[in-house]
Amino acid sequence: MSKLVIVGTVAFDAIETPFGKTEKILGGAATYIGLAASQFKVDGAIVSIVGGDFPKENLKMLKEKGMDISGLEIVEEGKTFFWSGKYHNDMNTRDTLITDLNVLSNFKPQVPENYKDAEVVMLGNLHPLVQLSVIEQMDAPKLIVLDTMNFWMDSALDDLKKVIAKVDVVTINDEEARQLSGEYSLVKAAQKIMQMGPDHVVIKKGEHGALLFGDDDVFFAPALPLREVFDPTGAGDTFAGGFTGYLSKTRDYSFSNMKNAVINGSVLASYCVEKFGPERLLDLSHKEMYYRLRQFKSLTQFEIKLT
Amino acid sequence: MSKLVIVGTVAFDAIETPFGKTEKILGGAATYIGLAASQFKVDGAIVSIVGGDFPKENLKMLKEKGMDISGLEIVEEGKTFFWSGKYHNDMNTRDTLITDLNVLSNFKPQVPENYKDAEVVMLGNLHPLVQLSVIEQMDAPKLIVLDTMNFWMDSALDDLKKVIAKVDVVTINDEEARQLSGEYSLVKAAQKIMQMGPDHVVIKKGEHGALLFGDDDVFFAPALPLREVFDPTGAGDTFAGGFTGYLSKTRDYSFSNMKNAVINGSVLASYCVEKFGPERLLDLSHKEMYYRLRQFKSLTQFEIKLT
Repeated sequence: MSKLVIVGTVAFDAIETPFGKTEKILGGAATYIGLAASQFKVDGAIVSIVGGDFPKENLKMLKEKGMDISGLEIVEEGKTFFWSGKYHNDMNTRDTLITDLNVLSNFKPQVPENYKDAEVVMLGNLHPLVQLSVIEQMDAPKLIVLDTMNFWMDSALDDLKKVIAKVDVVTINDEEARQLSGEYSLVKAAQKIMQMGPDHVVIKKGEHGALLFGDDDVFFAPALPLREVFDPTGAGDTFAGGFTGYLSKTRDYSFSNMKNAVINGSVLASYCVEKFGPERLLDLSHKEMYYRLRQFKSLTQFEIKLT
Repeated sequence: MSKLVIVGTVAFDAIETPFGKTEKILGGAATYIGLAASQFKVDGAIVSIVGGDFPKENLKMLKEKGMDISGLEIVEEGKTFFWSGKYHNDMNTRDTLITDLNVLSNFKPQVPENYKDAEVVMLGNLHPLVQLSVIEQMDAPKLIVLDTMNFWMDSALDDLKKVIAKVDVVTINDEEARQLSGEYSLVKAAQKIMQMGPDHVVIKKGEHGALLFGDDDVFFAPALPLREVFDPTGAGDTFAGGFTGYLSKTRDYSFSNMKNAVINGSVLASYCVEKFGPERLLDLSHKEMYYRLRQFKSLTQFEIKLT
């Protein structure tokens, strides 16, 4: 097992879906990433920032899940980042209602001394320069994974390109891959993004699954066909947490092991969307993980028979 | 090998895509289905209708591909069905520019006597009552596969339901499955459609692959990630032709063999879109089929390793 550094938001979310709505609940990219990675009992550290209003029991829960939170700064006089959104009926699109940056607007991430030698770094969606400052604090990580979104392509593209040049894997959704590369074909988009620096690109297609691209390799993981998607919030971060958690645990960064990491990320994401927020991840058992891994296997397994 | 009866249009198409445009070229659902099925050297018969303007060399080509065309009526004084369409830049949507039914408006399909004992029937997209009349001419087919589209849901829903009740497999695209069932979740949509009669439903998702549903089973075949999609015309029919051609050849109508049929259909569809119209299907080799079958395998194959 290697150490895993996770940087991203720890936040409050208020979510409305066709199935109901929540008050302020626990959210944030680093929360989902950490909870997903904790399935693999990794030695992970969350680097983030919250305000004095952040419940102590949430901090305790993250610690109990095995996450080091010495790099999770608490600004007692400040307020925690808050996001509120409403999903449309198709669950694939949403409107952001509120974004209160609060303490996040002055976030200067500090990687704990004893995690600077971590092998794996997961950069959750944040300003590219914040992501870059984390990379600069690390000794010599073997795998840096970056998640980002269109907001930074619109507002900080040059900075984003700087950080992309320094990472090993980019995870990005299909529309964002098209925007970043200027290519409609996802094959061409992935190739262009790899030309910017990374050896691998994961293109997330939501209910249509995820594609992993390497040098000459491509792998596809479907999304599990579900009867209901209750709340998609955090599914992409959960995927990223499962992906990096699995790789931290196994310490094998080959394409063939990344395929397993993609499947494990997809399994975790398929559970995440079954309840509001990160709730479903909190009590997820090893047995449930295995059950759905087998479902993914039977979903895609076939024999080649030539006739 | 069992006999295969194919009913559908044999037509002229004029196609415009971002990559270019064609004059009137060979098209029609039964053409694509027949050419795809011919990869499996099945004993197939095309039941359709054309006008006197239909080139004799196309008839000859279909015969050379092993298709019986004694049920392909030629109305010497009539004109062949003509469709013209233009694809949008994303290639997922298109506008129909012209639909000239011509001889198709009086099509009364006649299954040749020596094909009434066929085991497999592929009902390409046509008016549901035309599809029904083919079923009524058959002795006791083991597998009837129906393709349809939203046009008939809007204009002839009761007739469509009658024919759906009599078939074993429905192939349909995702939006049409949602329209027919009133369910957004494709899992629920497939279950509702199976309650209408069929034992299996194939939901085609274009560039996002295809889902095969059975009683308690589900299988997913991705679309091959391609650098270019040149012309999507006929991809769904080609898929259906590969699916039924493979099943006719192997005569095994189990879920596990249908998975192989779905993959073979996907392979053929992935070739179809590489050139205008059915051109790429005309000279497709066994070796090319096998090459891409292996690509599909490596695209989706992974090992379950629990950590």
